[in-house]
Amino acid sequence: MLLFLRSKDLVPAARERLTNLGVDFQLVSEEPIFEIRAHLSIYSPPVLATKLADLGRVETGKSRTPLLDAMPSGHEVVVEVRGRTEPIRFRNQPRQAVWIAGPCSLDESNNLEENAARLAKLGVQVLRGGAVKPRTSPHEFQGVGRAGYSQLARAAHAHGMACISETLSEDDVPEAAEFLDIIQVGARNMQNFALLRKLGRCAKPVMLKRGPGATLLEWASAAEYILNEGNRRIILCERGVRGLETELRYTLDLAGAAFMQHRYSLPMVIDPSHATGVKQILEACTAGALAMGFAGVMLETHPRPAEARSDALQALTPEEFSAIAGRHLHS
Amino acid sequence: MLLFLRSKDLVPAARERLTNLGVDFQLVSEEPIFEIRAHLSIYSPPVLATKLADLGRVETGKSRTPLLDAMPSGHEVVVEVRGRTEPIRFRNQPRQAVWIAGPCSLDESNNLEENAARLAKLGVQVLRGGAVKPRTSPHEFQGVGRAGYSQLARAAHAHGMACISETLSEDDVPEAAEFLDIIQVGARNMQNFALLRKLGRCAKPVMLKRGPGATLLEWASAAEYILNEGNRRIILCERGVRGLETELRYTLDLAGAAFMQHRYSLPMVIDPSHATGVKQILEACTAGALAMGFAGVMLETHPRPAEARSDALQALTPEEFSAIAGRHLHS
Amino acid sequence: MLLFLRSKDLVPAARERLTNLGVDFQLVSEEPIFEIRAHLSIYSPPVLATKLADLGRVETGKSRTPLLDAMPSGHEVVVEVRGRTEPIRFRNQPRQAVWIAGPCSLDESNNLEENAARLAKLGVQVLRGGAVKPRTSPHEFQGVGRAGYSQLARAAHAHGMACISETLSEDDVPEAAEFLDIIQVGARNMQNFALLRKLGRCAKPVMLKRGPGATLLEWASAAEYILNEGNRRIILCERGVRGLETELRYTLDLAGAAFMQHRYSLPMVIDPSHATGVKQILEACTAGALAMGFAGVMLETHPRPAEARSDALQALTPEEFSAIAGRHLHS
Amino acid sequence: MLLFLRSKDLVPAARERLTNLGVDFQLVSEEPIFEIRAHLSIYSPPVLATKLADLGRVETGKSRTPLLDAMPSGHEVVVEVRGRTEPIRFRNQPRQAVWIAGPCSLDESNNLEENAARLAKLGVQVLRGGAVKPRTSPHEFQGVGRAGYSQLARAAHAHGMACISETLSEDDVPEAAEFLDIIQVGARNMQNFALLRKLGRCAKPVMLKRGPGATLLEWASAAEYILNEGNRRIILCERGVRGLETELRYTLDLAGAAFMQHRYSLPMVIDPSHATGVKQILEACTAGALAMGFAGVMLETHPRPAEARSDALQALTPEEFSAIAGRHLHS
Repeated sequence: MLLFLRSKDLVPAARERLTNLGVDFQLVSEEPIFEIRAHLSIYSPPVLATKLADLGRVETGKSRTPLLDAMPSGHEVVVEVRGRTEPIRFRNQPRQAVWIAGPCSLDESNNLEENAARLAKLGVQVLRGGAVKPRTSPHEFQGVGRAGYSQLARAAHAHGMACISETLSEDDVPEAAEFLDIIQVGARNMQNFALLRKLGRCAKPVMLKRGPGATLLEWASAAEYILNEGNRRIILCERGVRGLETELRYTLDLAGAAFMQHRYSLPMVIDPSHATGVKQILEACTAGALAMGFAGVMLETHPRPAEARSDALQALTPEEFSAIAGRHLHS
Repeated sequence: MLLFLRSKDLVPAARERLTNLGVDFQLVSEEPIFEIRAHLSIYSPPVLATKLADLGRVETGKSRTPLLDAMPSGHEVVVEVRGRTEPIRFRNQPRQAVWIAGPCSLDESNNLEENAARLAKLGVQVLRGGAVKPRTSPHEFQGVGRAGYSQLARAAHAHGMACISETLSEDDVPEAAEFLDIIQVGARNMQNFALLRKLGRCAKPVMLKRGPGATLLEWASAAEYILNEGNRRIILCERGVRGLETELRYTLDLAGAAFMQHRYSLPMVIDPSHATGVKQILEACTAGALAMGFAGVMLETHPRPAEARSDALQALTPEEFSAIAGRHLHS
Repeated sequence: MLLFLRSKDLVPAARERLTNLGVDFQLVSEEPIFEIRAHLSIYSPPVLATKLADLGRVETGKSRTPLLDAMPSGHEVVVEVRGRTEPIRFRNQPRQAVWIAGPCSLDESNNLEENAARLAKLGVQVLRGGAVKPRTSPHEFQGVGRAGYSQLARAAHAHGMACISETLSEDDVPEAAEFLDIIQVGARNMQNFALLRKLGRCAKPVMLKRGPGATLLEWASAAEYILNEGNRRIILCERGVRGLETELRYTLDLAGAAFMQHRYSLPMVIDPSHATGVKQILEACTAGALAMGFAGVMLETHPRPAEARSDALQALTPEEFSAIAGRHLHS
Repeated sequence: MLLFLRSKDLVPAARERLTNLGVDFQLVSEEPIFEIRAHLSIYSPPVLATKLADLGRVETGKSRTPLLDAMPSGHEVVVEVRGRTEPIRFRNQPRQAVWIAGPCSLDESNNLEENAARLAKLGVQVLRGGAVKPRTSPHEFQGVGRAGYSQLARAAHAHGMACISETLSEDDVPEAAEFLDIIQVGARNMQNFALLRKLGRCAKPVMLKRGPGATLLEWASAAEYILNEGNRRIILCERGVRGLETELRYTLDLAGAAFMQHRYSLPMVIDPSHATGVKQILEACTAGALAMGFAGVMLETHPRPAEARSDALQALTPEEFSAIAGRHLHS
């Protein structure tokens, strides 16, 4: 992005304005022209241009995410749920964040009905549970299959909760759209563009998890694929990126999520369970996420973690989850 | 993995054996028992057990990649090509590495026929070219579509070359399998398990690129998905991982590829074009890859890079590619 | 770490116990023996051994950080300040977190006295300011030199605040120890072992920043160097690690800091200014850090950021900082 | 960097020139002006300006590494060795690369004299060995101390080899400069600016290892610190960066080293031993490094690795090293 100052006398004022906006720049020419780092700044190109317009002409270049840039701030994703009077609202800086909880995978070790009853009573608004599971190895449990979608929906709706589950391929979408209230795109499929396009043509809210190797711009661009097909009901979910540390499963990028929340208007949910894999710090991460103003949090819970067929170590027992919810989920 | 020594007297011998094998261990008990770091060592569990069997009993635990572990060393992927007498053979430590070259995407800026003629003459065995393109943004050129598969095949076969192109979704597979000699799974789809399973049930060779956020174990496990469906004709391709450096597009992990080549028997191809994005160092990376004994190299070439609709900066001009091929491709 | 169960009947109980502790394990032998991932778990080896003692014999192996492991939980670093009645207390889960603020570097663009007065009035307990500056390039401003230590101390003490500044080499330590209340080891010197040893033999509190390429174990081991020389007054400071994202300066690893806070008893301070470099998200990161129970936060402030000789973009103006302090610093 | 074209008619020509140079650009204005990504391109600002001068006026902005940019290409670091007729020459694209070998640390398990004799006979030109050791934990072996410098020198010089060892602090420099032929700055001290400055004022060749969390620009800037004090005898050494993969100690960034070799004229040495920690792939990495035209390679060897007090797993036995040297070190 280039700022062609109206006059040389404005150099000090421009320097001060750009610094105070927190925008990286260099004065590259004696014209004078300021060159502004334009990759993905904290402001969209049109917003930044407006903030600088009085100083001279601004050449913004093309935005990488024009559809996201055009969305109004305070965008809200409203989820209507069968059998629930009030819809569930996902938006950043919420009066009350949305809590999503449930087991990693739907399997015989879960009593979904009992689970749902307990979580609903604690104030959880969305029941999660994997039906088709993306597992690193083909020799690991692959989930109960799409039949799980309707079971999950039944359990959730019976208690006035919405339900969310993941799709792994375009073929999963029709059945998912029939039963689920929110369709999840998992981290491994963040750039499965065929799937994103299909979900963009579907009427359901989509929760797009960040890929563990994805930059913020790649993540925003994946959302842009869904928007480009017409679906504006997009929720982002930060679940950790690959980093240098190996004690935790991934590096939970709360600051990156805050950047996204400031730059774009899509609601952001934080998933500390998958990000860290360490149950002892889930409460701290949840408290942090709530204080940072994110739209929601997602936590894994299991009645008996030792029997879970996936991600047992990070699953909170009912008692552990109740304690956290009691301290942080004020319904 | 645990090694229960037959006798305490064997501690020094075991220590020496394990060190010389380059295996990380601790003597954790006075029994005596050695605990061996068993995540994904340079030896498969059965091989390591054999090498230690005279010292005592070995408990290997379950292998994460049992099908890969069971493949014989020196595995070769043979690609038969219409109109070519000799098949193309991918194997590590080759007498002669396979060269794959061609444009990033098939588009109107390419004269495929002319391109193919020139590359074939230089000794290139495989023609590459993207028909359906996975692009970060939906506003970028998305490729000419599956119709490109047959065009690519025609151009390649007319000059005795094999052809390779990418599939983005299960729906691409039938047409890809009809026309292509090798089907590529791109980095973004490395863990698109639905696609992997479908390719595992197909009779064609599959080149599986490493995801930019994927560990070596995740990459091997993705290959295990294809193997698990019965397709053993798998070629791996290292194309860079996300790292801390931003001058190059990705960090080309040649040492990681060497680890995989030593640990598993799948042929490995190196793609320095996508990994680095810097044409000035492609010759050095190619020379390095050849010296390291990889099965092949893949390079992007374009008749007029400035007109290419994707990845122009890393595309070698015909003159640049000829110079590199002249120095390193001895046919 | 190995757990030799007293009896085979205890296998299910052990499995449940280990899962509920969130400890990664495999049953590797029919003896039965459980192998527990022992690199740096959320529990120290002696603590974990105690929690499993009723199930059988535990072989923990050697701890990597025995001195840290031996420190009692709730360790507090008390900083006595000349001219201040109450000492400043750094401890995790504080009633009130310590706020550290001030300019990146002491230079002629700062009016230290005015700055100190304003920060003290807002409730900031510690004044920061770099005297000797570690700069990526030798052509950048290198700081005013050690003379800055006494200037900083004068300004801080006049307003009942403590002061903190960085040492770059052993030669800086005597003068730093004379004037400063807390001595900072910067990220680039986290493994400058000669400096760590010298600070370990000094009577002053030390704030040890995490190196941008350092694992949690390396960070803890650096603290162990200071402890090993006898200095127990160690405060850790998370300031971001190198990650795959480039929009922010570094990746702020709040979850990693929470892990350290749970595993060790050293107080933890969070520095979102250096970690992110993006002033628009500093309030969110500060709010998150406070909610997570860290001992303190550190923020960069400058009266006129455009005139700062280093890190101008992330420096909060007095008005911006007052607004954040007003909402989050309850004195 | 901005290119102000002389005329609009030159837009296509400029586009082609910039693309063929492999330089990232956007046409940002209708003036017409091209904005060129100027962070650290494969060309230095003055070189790039020269290559574009016929198209119009170029505003390069300030170089981050002006001293390195001003060094002539083909820079050679010549090491004169007592008792050796020919000096040892480090330069990229060498007729014959320099081999550096020896144990990780000098300790009682090594017979230095015997070691030196064997390595010299194989054609190794430089003997390495750590006297003062930077170890992650204070409870690990810290080296024999500076007395090791003279022992190492005696053993090396007796066989016509040069010697290299590491300094950890400014206090090590006088004794190191007295005895060593090349002084090493270890990865952990790459940004220990006090040490860099002291070495910059010393007459000895310095080998600067890349920090595991350092970008290429930070590495070059660290070399700039040494240059800035007047010492031009700088050798760079790539030894791996922190990455997402954990099977290998670090990620060996051969492509990054090739970028540095192309961009700057400092000789580059590759150290696959520390980078990978996996002895089975050291030969492949060495062969790759030699083929890529680097100035030298550095490998760890030990007469009896099981007795080594540091880095035993990656140390090559005399037999293993002889085999590699026999195939790749042609003296």
